[in-house]
Parts: sequence; C-alpha cells; structure tokens
Amino acid sequence: MQREEKIEAFRALHHGPRILVLPNAWDVASARIFEDAGCAAIGTSSAGVAFALGYADGQHIPRDEMLEVVHRIARAVAVPVTADVESGYGDAVATAQAVVEAGAIGMNIEDANHYGKGDAASLLPIDKQVRHIHDIRAATDLVINARTDIFLLGIGEADTRFERAVERLNAYLHAGADCAFAPGVRDAETIENLARDVLGPLNILAVAGTPSIEELEKMDVARVSVGSGPMRATLALLRRIAEELHHRGGFEIFRDAIPYAELNALLGGK
Amino acid sequence: MQREEKIEAFRALHHGPRILVLPNAWDVASARIFEDAGCAAIGTSSAGVAFALGYADGQHIPRDEMLEVVHRIARAVAVPVTADVESGYGDAVATAQAVVEAGAIGMNIEDANHYGKGDAASLLPIDKQVRHIHDIRAATDLVINARTDIFLLGIGEADTRFERAVERLNAYLHAGADCAFAPGVRDAETIENLARDVLGPLNILAVAGTPSIEELEKMDVARVSVGSGPMRATLALLRRIAEELHHRGGFEIFRDAIPYAELNALLGGK
Repeated sequence: MQREEKIEAFRALHHGPRILVLPNAWDVASARIFEDAGCAAIGTSSAGVAFALGYADGQHIPRDEMLEVVHRIARAVAVPVTADVESGYGDAVATAQAVVEAGAIGMNIEDANHYGKGDAASLLPIDKQVRHIHDIRAATDLVINARTDIFLLGIGEADTRFERAVERLNAYLHAGADCAFAPGVRDAETIENLARDVLGPLNILAVAGTPSIEELEKMDVARVSVGSGPMRATLALLRRIAEELHHRGGFEIFRDAIPYAELNALLGGK
Repeated sequence: MQREEKIEAFRALHHGPRILVLPNAWDVASARIFEDAGCAAIGTSSAGVAFALGYADGQHIPRDEMLEVVHRIARAVAVPVTADVESGYGDAVATAQAVVEAGAIGMNIEDANHYGKGDAASLLPIDKQVRHIHDIRAATDLVINARTDIFLLGIGEADTRFERAVERLNAYLHAGADCAFAPGVRDAETIENLARDVLGPLNILAVAGTPSIEELEKMDVARVSVGSGPMRATLALLRRIAEELHHRGGFEIFRDAIPYAELNALLGGK
C-alpha cells in the first residue's frame, strides 16, 4: 500500500461499523507479533518505547530516539503505523513532520504539560493545544489522535472533568484532529456519555476492567487502544521468569516460548 | 562498583561453590527487571536484541546497533553486564574493544561462520578462532565466554560432536577464555561428560527440558544462561494478547501487568 492509501484506509477504520482495535507496540518484535496475528494497524506506546530504551515515560526520551523506533517499526510492518509522540517534545509541528519522515501515517498528540513547573500535573492551555493541532493539520497528512490528559492525570475537580474534557476534545476535533482520545476513563457510563458528547470518533484506552470490545462498540466508541498494557503484561511474566531463575527453579517456564526459528522467520522476512 | 571490581566479581562467580545463573536481556526494561529480581549479573541475547530492532539473528544486525543496546543496558544497571556479540562481526578484536567501550565487562564469542558460503552451517577453523580469543585476551580485560556451535548447529557426524566440542572448548580456554560455552546440549549425560572433560568453567544454555539449576550445579556446570528464552516466552504471551485483541475479547489479560507507576520508577532511577 502506498502512503496515501494507508492513510485513507486507516482514517476509514475510524468511521466503519466496527470499532478499531489498535494494539500498541514498543519494538519491532512486538509490532511483528501484532501484525502476524492479523491486526489491521499498529500504534506505538511512548511508555513502552521509553522503558525499552531506558527512560521513564513523560518526554524524558529524546525525540529522535522515540522516532527511530517508530521508523524501525514502520519499516518492518506492512500495516499502517501511528506514533505516540506525547506532547510533541517542545515543537509539535516539527515532531509531526519527523513522524511523517519516520514512515508513520498517524500520531497522538496529548495536552499534558510535561515541562510544567513543580510536581503538579498540568495541561497546556486549550488555545495553545488547538493551535498545535491546527498547525499539524496544515503541515502534514497525518491521522491526528488528539488526547486530553484530564482524566488520566486527574486534573481539576473531579466533577468538572467530564465537561472540561468534552470541551477540549471538541475543540481539538474542530482544529482538525481525526479522533479524540480520553485515556483514564473506565466506567461504562462516562464512556457512553463521552461517545455521545464528543463530536467525532472517540478513542478509549483499555485496561483490566474496561468494558469489553463488544460493549465499547455498542457505545459507539470508534477506537480502542491499550497503551503500555501489553508490554507491562509481558514484563510481569518476565519478572516471574527472573524470580524462577533467581530462586533456582527449573526451566519449564520456557515451555511455551515461541520457537527461535519461528521468530527468526518473523523478523527476517519483508 | 568500579570496572575492575566488577570484572573480578563476575569472574569469581565462575569459580564459586554455586552455579552462576545468568539471565539474558534484550533491552533496558528487561535488564532492569532481572536486576530488580536480584540477579547478580546480566547477559545480553543477540537474538533478543536483533528481534527487538527488526533483524533475524546471526550477524544480520550491524555491530554498532548491537553495541548501542549493550551500552544502554550497561548504563542502566549496577550489576556486571556481559555482551553476546555473536562471532564478532568480522573483526573480533575491534568488536571486543567496542564491548569494553559500551561498558560491558564480558563477552561471548562463538565459532559459527556466519559469513560462510551457501546454506550449510559451518564453523570457523579452530586455529582461526583460537587466534581470535588469544587476541581478545591480549587486547582487553573482558571475561571471555568462548562458545562452540557444534551442538547447536548440529555440525558434523553426531557421534563425533562431543569429542570435537571438547577439543575446541579446551583450545579456547587455553587461548585465554574464562569460560567454555556449549549451547545445544540438554541431556544430563552429555552435560555431565562435558563438565568432566572441559578443563575450565562450563556454560550451558538452558531451555525447557534442561536439567534443573540444582542438577546442573551438582554436575559441576559453572554457569547457566537462557539465551533468547525469556524474550521468546514473553512474545508467546504477547501473541496471546494479540489474538485476544484481534478476536475482540476483553481486557482481563492485562490484570497482572506490572503497574505503570512501578515501571516508571524502575526505569527512572537507579
């Protein structure tokens, strides 16, 4: 598929009868596993990439290192890849252009203010984030997933969050975003109300306890992604392996591992 | 710990009363999980690093990319790190020096001939590999783990492999290697005979079905490593996650994931 076709195919997945289930990879191996399982598109996880390279999440990783991983993944898979580039690393438009160069056809842009003073979580002013999205829309052909961190970071009084999140997400859609992303909500009622009040495709971040894919689809959620969940689940298994080794157990924990030759073939082709 | 102390501590672990259990990491997150579980030292897995970066195993990855990951890992953990650098990427001494620069205190060097003609697996001539090991010993302070691929690649008549492996491993030890590595053997009798006939510390690669750590220790195996097993086990879980997502299941598979904040802390500090 050419770039333009990929973009249109990926954008269309936000408007189909079925919910778009978007898994999040953190390296080429994880991306190839998702593609091989039949996933129609792949997102990256900023946290996953940061952890793999040795950084905490939250724009501690240099932009170029994040995008090098995006580039490796986009080069290795045939399906569309959308990049999680946090708040844009201080220059949202330059970052968006670098996302295009890395071969991705979409990006997440969040409104968390990672460079804020002090420990308190904060958001970029709404008009500033609207301008970022407008400028990314003008400068690139990316499928833009605009995220508000109000719920995830628990910003402001709890009973005002829904209203403020809807205000921001609709402003982001109006500025040219293709999809509105509200991570940090898990209860069915809030999700349903968001899907009703947000005037465009809605992306939900799924964790344990989130309504099922079928339920989300019934609520008119357009897209569900899983962030660093897959990587964190695999690291929980790795911790069990580490403890088994450290406490001098046996090696049966490797019984179900994907065979070496199979992974070699999965990574060797294309 | 300073470099010299790390080297001596790591070397001593090959001569203690207990077997050295060496887990193999492929990125910083996996290395930090192993360190956090109490592992005394960490190896890298060439296959794991290659898969993560999008290459098949077997020297397809450029040396600098392999060593960049080694460097990231060595920078992120306090325990000694030993690097799997396959057959040395065409220049074993230069690669060994780059391993030192990357901050590792040990290296694996294998005798598989990755640049051989045709599809048949082959080995570097024994005198050539002996010279490599001798030159690495002269040029660096690394703890050298010299590996023969006779068993792993199934090279030569089966009933001659044991004898040829012992000949090679003893020649490698004589040339200055600290440890002799014979991956591809799993049955207790062969392992026991290797431990008896190899005139120095013996490293066994454990997979499902290998005798337990306690049994290996009783056989006088000095070191047991796990290669790409941990990564391949986590990718098997990832495949289950991918299938769960692709077939529109729920999200309970993320229930046991390591919490985001915990991983953020694990990767954010030392």
